[in-house]
Amino acid sequence: MTFNETVRKTIRARNSLVCVGLDTVPSRIPESIRSGPDPVFEFNKRIIDATQDLVAAYKPNLAFYEALGTEGWDILRRTVSAIPDGILKIGDAKRGDIGSTAEQYAKALWNIGFDAVTLNPYLGRDAVDPFIRNTEKGAIILCLTSNAGSQDFQKRFLDGMPLYLHVARAIAEWNGNDNCGLVAGATHGEELWAIREITPDLPFLIPGIGAQGGDLESAVLSGTDKAGEMALINSSRGILYASSGAGFAEAARNAAEILRNEINVVRKTKG
Amino acid sequence: MTFNETVRKTIRARNSLVCVGLDTVPSRIPESIRSGPDPVFEFNKRIIDATQDLVAAYKPNLAFYEALGTEGWDILRRTVSAIPDGILKIGDAKRGDIGSTAEQYAKALWNIGFDAVTLNPYLGRDAVDPFIRNTEKGAIILCLTSNAGSQDFQKRFLDGMPLYLHVARAIAEWNGNDNCGLVAGATHGEELWAIREITPDLPFLIPGIGAQGGDLESAVLSGTDKAGEMALINSSRGILYASSGAGFAEAARNAAEILRNEINVVRKTKG
Repeated sequence: MTFNETVRKTIRARNSLVCVGLDTVPSRIPESIRSGPDPVFEFNKRIIDATQDLVAAYKPNLAFYEALGTEGWDILRRTVSAIPDGILKIGDAKRGDIGSTAEQYAKALWNIGFDAVTLNPYLGRDAVDPFIRNTEKGAIILCLTSNAGSQDFQKRFLDGMPLYLHVARAIAEWNGNDNCGLVAGATHGEELWAIREITPDLPFLIPGIGAQGGDLESAVLSGTDKAGEMALINSSRGILYASSGAGFAEAARNAAEILRNEINVVRKTKG
Repeated sequence: MTFNETVRKTIRARNSLVCVGLDTVPSRIPESIRSGPDPVFEFNKRIIDATQDLVAAYKPNLAFYEALGTEGWDILRRTVSAIPDGILKIGDAKRGDIGSTAEQYAKALWNIGFDAVTLNPYLGRDAVDPFIRNTEKGAIILCLTSNAGSQDFQKRFLDGMPLYLHVARAIAEWNGNDNCGLVAGATHGEELWAIREITPDLPFLIPGIGAQGGDLESAVLSGTDKAGEMALINSSRGILYASSGAGFAEAARNAAEILRNEINVVRKTKG
């Protein structure tokens, strides 16, 4: 099964577009766990156990694990292993390097156990190629990011069209193995429609709701495909840190459930 | 001292523009070391010991260490610690993420001990900011890369000028703390002149000679500043794997010395 088929199957089977960003910061882990021997993994495991029936994907961002020092990669590897089968494991790595180096990144990231990774398009096709050879594995490529800096280059016009739409076109071209997706931030409601028009069937990974201020309804309407599928709506801080007390896992579960239900209400008006 | 001042001082003190890319692949380590208990570190240490008086910088690319699995970051950290003071330690990471995540990457990379890291400009200014707050640390930002994929977006025209020159202009703007540099591949002789015109004083990190086919003379002439300084010419495979036998360290030294001398001959015609 190709990665993009797996995305559709997973979303249907779980009836959820929720992606939980496992961007764990030690200082924000509740005291009861923070004082234990393996706090980041233990926290992640509790979050996964509490939310796993509500989500389509988990997405650790590698920066948060690299910031833990030499133990970080082992904590990341164990975290990914703790995600149950049938849920997408996305490595938010935003890597981009020349072909022979990209091969090394692909080796590193697939060895951790990810189903897909995020990539940066600035280096072009050969930086993506090593990640899309295996049709079962996915490359989710930055198109239009959720931050203020997306104005600096992504929204600049090039031959009458903003750069991010050129990137969307390229990603559609690179999708010969049916395993490319794209990142499009929820902070750009109108622009999401334009990207969806160019890539009607590709999976979108949509960050930027919650702490970053993106509008959920608009993101679901514009980011999903015609069937109200093929989008993963990411929430990190809103779920992980829903409560800083001992009941954090239940609070995370509640937040994930509310998010899933809010999304599904909007999807019904569409699909 | 700002990072860019440190680059100039280092190049003058060492009379060298050579940067050795520590992109170590276990299968290419000579048999005598490969069978030992700590082959990647041991190989790196031998290369550093053999070449340190000939170079201005060492540049491990993180992909090669992440590909080693959970031990990789520790091997990287020890490798960086083995680089003598007075030589630039550049982390070739090509990271780029939104501000709060970029903070985590900055923490991770400065903790390893790097003086500067390479970054990707696609996410704009706020992805770079956490790396340039400390004026002593440098951000070397991708402008025009040495691979074929640089055609896909970097060379596309935007308001009458290729994207990579817009990126060069932005990097010049971001250089308020005198600690931004840029990556410009040796495979683009003519374009290097245009980038140098926009950023006359910034340090250039120039990959792409040797295995990638870039012309050395043209890279030195176009990539250095008016004084024939402020460029670091990277060689990875040509030095690391100059010999696969027991004399690999001496062969690496010879290759680094030849490269330094060839570069300095060209610099004299300019500076």
